[in-house]
Formats: sequence, C-alpha cells, structure tokens
Amino acid sequence: MTHRAMPQTRVGRFGLIAALVAIALFIACSAAAPARAADDPLSSWNDGPTKQAILDFVATTTDEASPNFVPPAERVVTFDQDGTLWVEKPMYSQVVYCLSRVPDVVKAKPELADVEPFKTVLSGDRAAVATLPQADLIKILTATLTGMSVEEFQAAAQKWLDSAKDARWHRPYTELTYLPMHELLEYFRANGFQTYIVTGGGQDFVRVYADRVYGIPPEQVVGSAAGTKYGYDKQGKPFLTKEPRLLLNDNDAGKPEGIHLMIGRRPHASFGNSTGDRQMLEYTKAGDGARLSMLLLHDDAEREYAYGPAQGLPDSKVGTFTQALYDEAQSKGWIVISMKRDWNRVFSFAE
Amino acid sequence: MTHRAMPQTRVGRFGLIAALVAIALFIACSAAAPARAADDPLSSWNDGPTKQAILDFVATTTDEASPNFVPPAERVVTFDQDGTLWVEKPMYSQVVYCLSRVPDVVKAKPELADVEPFKTVLSGDRAAVATLPQADLIKILTATLTGMSVEEFQAAAQKWLDSAKDARWHRPYTELTYLPMHELLEYFRANGFQTYIVTGGGQDFVRVYADRVYGIPPEQVVGSAAGTKYGYDKQGKPFLTKEPRLLLNDNDAGKPEGIHLMIGRRPHASFGNSTGDRQMLEYTKAGDGARLSMLLLHDDAEREYAYGPAQGLPDSKVGTFTQALYDEAQSKGWIVISMKRDWNRVFSFAE
Repeated sequence: MTHRAMPQTRVGRFGLIAALVAIALFIACSAAAPARAADDPLSSWNDGPTKQAILDFVATTTDEASPNFVPPAERVVTFDQDGTLWVEKPMYSQVVYCLSRVPDVVKAKPELADVEPFKTVLSGDRAAVATLPQADLIKILTATLTGMSVEEFQAAAQKWLDSAKDARWHRPYTELTYLPMHELLEYFRANGFQTYIVTGGGQDFVRVYADRVYGIPPEQVVGSAAGTKYGYDKQGKPFLTKEPRLLLNDNDAGKPEGIHLMIGRRPHASFGNSTGDRQMLEYTKAGDGARLSMLLLHDDAEREYAYGPAQGLPDSKVGTFTQALYDEAQSKGWIVISMKRDWNRVFSFAE
Repeated sequence: MTHRAMPQTRVGRFGLIAALVAIALFIACSAAAPARAADDPLSSWNDGPTKQAILDFVATTTDEASPNFVPPAERVVTFDQDGTLWVEKPMYSQVVYCLSRVPDVVKAKPELADVEPFKTVLSGDRAAVATLPQADLIKILTATLTGMSVEEFQAAAQKWLDSAKDARWHRPYTELTYLPMHELLEYFRANGFQTYIVTGGGQDFVRVYADRVYGIPPEQVVGSAAGTKYGYDKQGKPFLTKEPRLLLNDNDAGKPEGIHLMIGRRPHASFGNSTGDRQMLEYTKAGDGARLSMLLLHDDAEREYAYGPAQGLPDSKVGTFTQALYDEAQSKGWIVISMKRDWNRVFSFAE
C-alpha cells in the first residue's frame, strides 16, 4: 500500500459510511411519510367541500410553484374569538367575568350598592341582568375593566378563569373552545402562517389566556382596547393603569381598522361567525391572489347551540348571523362552515 | 453464526457507523467553533463596558442555567427610530417627506396656495420653514399624511424614499442608518429576540421601509398612529382611508402605553436617544430579572452630529438629550452609548 493510497482508502471508507447513512435516512423517511399523511391534521373536520377549501387554500399559498404563493413572512390568518374559537352563548364569557367582579367593586365603593345597574347585579336576578340595556352594560364593563393596574387586572382575570365554570357543561370557560378550530390554528402555523385573534372582546382579557389556550401570544391578539395611563407608585416604580378611554372598538369596520393598526397587513384568510366579522371577511377576500373567508354557522343545538335567522332560528343579542350576512357570503365566495355537517367533534372533552 | 447473532452483528456495524459519524460531526463542529467566535457579530462596536453590557445581557437571558433566563417567546427588545437607528438631524426625515408633498397637495386644492403655512412651504424659504410653529407643522402633517387610502400613501412614501437624498451625504435617507445598530438588531434576532421599532414617528411611514431596511416587519413597528376609516370604492371594493384622528402619540408616556397596546409584554431591553424615550427605558428597566436600557449619545460631529445639553452642546428641537435624562440614566443603571467612543464605524458606506 503506497503512502498515497492510504488517504484514498480512508476517503473511500467514509464515503461508504456516508452512503449507508444516507440510505438509512432515506428508508427511515420513506417509511415515516405514509404514516404522517394518514395522521390527518384536521381529523375533527369531515371530508367535504368545506375541509377541502381549507386544504386547497393552504396548498396553493404555500406551493412555490403556484401563482398564489405567499412568502412565509407575509402569511397572516385572523380569527374572531367569541362564537368562532369558543362558545359565546348564552352570554359572552367576558361579560360573565365583569358581572362576577361587581361585588368586589361595590365592596371598594359601597355607595354603588344602591345605584343601578350595580343594584340589579347584586340582587342576583339573572333574568333582570340579562335584559340590562347597553348603557348599563357599559357602566359595568367600565367599573370592572378599568381603574386598576394592568397587572391587577391580569391577576383578577386569571383567578376567575381558574375557578369559574359555565352552567351547561360545568367546565372552565377555556375548555369550551372548539377542537376543529384548535386543529386549524395548528395546521396554519405548521404551514408558516401567523395566527391572530381579532376579537370584539377586550384585548387585555383575551391576552390573559390566549397563549395558554390557543398558543397565540399577546402580540397576536387584536381586540377592543382602552387606553392606559403611565404613572409611578409610591416607590417610584412605573406602572400602567387601565383607563375608561376607548381606543379601538374592534367590531364591524373596527376589525379591518384594528388589523391595519396592529398587524399592518391584509390577512390571507379570516374566520368569523357574525355580522361583527363582515368587514374583516370582506377586507380579506378583496386582496389579490388566493384569499379565504369563512363563517361558522351555529346549527347544532345538540352538541352546542343553534341560533341566527340564517337558519330560520331566532336572532339573539350576541353573534348575529343574519340572512343578509348569509347572502353576502354566497355572493362573494365566502364559505359557510356548518357545525353540524362539517365537524365530527366539537369539543376535546366530548366524543 | 446463529439466526439470532445476525441482527446483533448488523446493529454492531450500524453502531460503529453512528459512532464514526458522531465523531466526524464533533470534529467538524469543534473546528468551526473558533472561526465563528472570531467572526464578531458586533464588529462595529469597540470593546469596552458598553459592548460588554450588551453581550452580558444576551448571555444571561439566553442561558437556561441562568436565573435571568427568558424563554424565547417572551424575548422582546424595542428600538426608538429617529436618532437611534438612523439620523434625525437636521430634521426628521418624515417631516422632509411631508414638506415635499405640499406642492401636490396644493395642486389638488389650489385655494391653499395663499394660506399659511402652505404659502411659506411653497416659497422655498428654508429658514422660514425651519421656524414654523408646532401648530403649522401639524397642519402640514395632516394635509400630507391623511385623506388618502393606505395604499396611495404607501406608494407616495415609497416613491419619495426611492428618489430623495439628504443634503449632507447625498444619499437616500434609508442609507443613513447606523451600522452598529443593524448589527445589534441581527444579534438580538440571532438570539431569539423579537426586535420592535417603537417610534414617535408615523407608524405607517416607518412600515413602508422597516422590513427592507431593518428586517423589521410591519407588525413589529409601533409608532404614532392615526385612525383609518373603512369604506368602499365605486366597484364595491373595500379600502381604508387615513384619517386625521390621532389614536396613539407614541412619544414619552405614549411609548410604554403603545407597547402595552401593540405588544402586550414589557420589553427586556430598550434603546433610545432622547427625552421622548425616557418612559420606555424606565418601564423596561423596572421589570424583573435582567433588563437593559440604553441611550445613544450623539457626540460625534465629525462622523455624524453632536447635540444635546448633556455634553454642554446646544439643545435642539429634535432628539433632546437633556442633563436630566443623563442624570436619570446614571442613577437608574441605564447605559449611555457614546457614538464617538463606542462605535468604530457609523455608516455602512463610510469606513
């Protein structure tokens, strides 16, 4: 063996090892591939045109060879929260939270005990509370959502979320989230989309649980927002106080306006369930290339609720899915998700 | 050889291959490590306590064994823009942009030609323009930044950025960005931090170039923001019009308020250069664990500018670095970056 032949032999040996490793990796990957395909990322969605529309949208926007390809950094999808990601009936959970805070507010300000609407709330008369006019509701929201530091609010909301349970399923509100929508969030993220919540609900309230519950961090929660005021405590430490000054009413036209303010990009896909989401879905669908606008129709009284004139069902104060909205969806190519038809499971706790 | 021995032998051979590959990888990585260390990510920063403070902060917040460890998802660093990431003298570039738009505004509304402050701007008398009072400046900003669609504004701003040049270096404004701050942005991002701009300047204006110039996407630009109004064009296509309605004055206390609104997390590090950044730096530094607040002092008249009473230099309308701010930095452990002492290069176009 010559001096020159030695290294060649070594190179040859390493080349063989490299080839064997490459073959082993190829076999391992080939074997794993069918298993992954069988592992449907949207397994709670029944096969059909609704599910297919989602799969097609993601396929065309993530395929570099497609004219609809969207670079990963620009992939944005927005989700309404109440009635789209979780249950909004019979009352928005944030309103339930605010009502639960009234006794503490009155304890701190006893003079409110005989003042409406606090008097009615303290009476415990649920029927009377349910019919409080909008102006009274705003008084309750203002008294319970503002005037404290951001950290005090977060702690109070967290405490309530940890203990409160809904009246129908007797579960924490954060469990009343829709399993198919969880799958959808994961599926979009796995395909490089940023998933935002764009809610008419309070931005600070939703941020308390969105990361833990949906995997959506605070900076990706857009919601109705009041201003804060910067100040210092007695030790000179700065803090922010929540103020009764509305910056953004993130409903209706406020949704695209909030999206521009907070995200600065037009979403490629949006999901909603009511007239409050109309402009967000219009704005999304009006963009260039492939765009997906979807509305969730609550037509499953057995597993969840059924409401909205679109199904000839009674209208309600919350989550109004009107006939006009349904007609606009049809005319503009938005896709209506039927909870009853399109979802084989609704909640993770129920088969 | 028994039937049972066969697989054992195979396992043994694959084990040997795996071990060899592991050793080869270890050698390759060990060889590469010193090369990477020599490739200083902050090479425009001179060695010394300022640079060391940055390196120490990143080391302690990214080391899982450190009590100051911050999970990647929570790592946020905020940067002021004018005077911190790029030149702000002799006039904010956005103001230069607005002044450049006045002829077009007057063309569309000829009645403004004889109305102040438009008359003065059209006269071309730079000295007179430079002394326009705040109220007149607001009239110019309102006339040139609002009343058009978001897309029209973006196109006009982009066109100006592509063609306008500053009077001193005769370069596009987007080249007047500080090389050491570019390195810092990259360094933070390489260590898992989200890098936000938090500017007193217009959010929509900065978003036009922040992604291209700094690698900071629109959703990570927080700035002074006016409202938008949702509407439809003649074909029924929705669009947003920029309105003269201030939502967020992202200066002074407005910076932590804007950070809460748009990010919802307290930054772990913040960089500024003037009194308008004071509250942001206070808010950052008041958080738990390791926090870094830094101020850039413009003390290099030769390579850039020198201004601010902190160096006994004349005060100016923009970027005021007062003695009080300097004293607060000293008392609160903020670090003052001296452009002259700490940066061996200022711009990428100048050695």
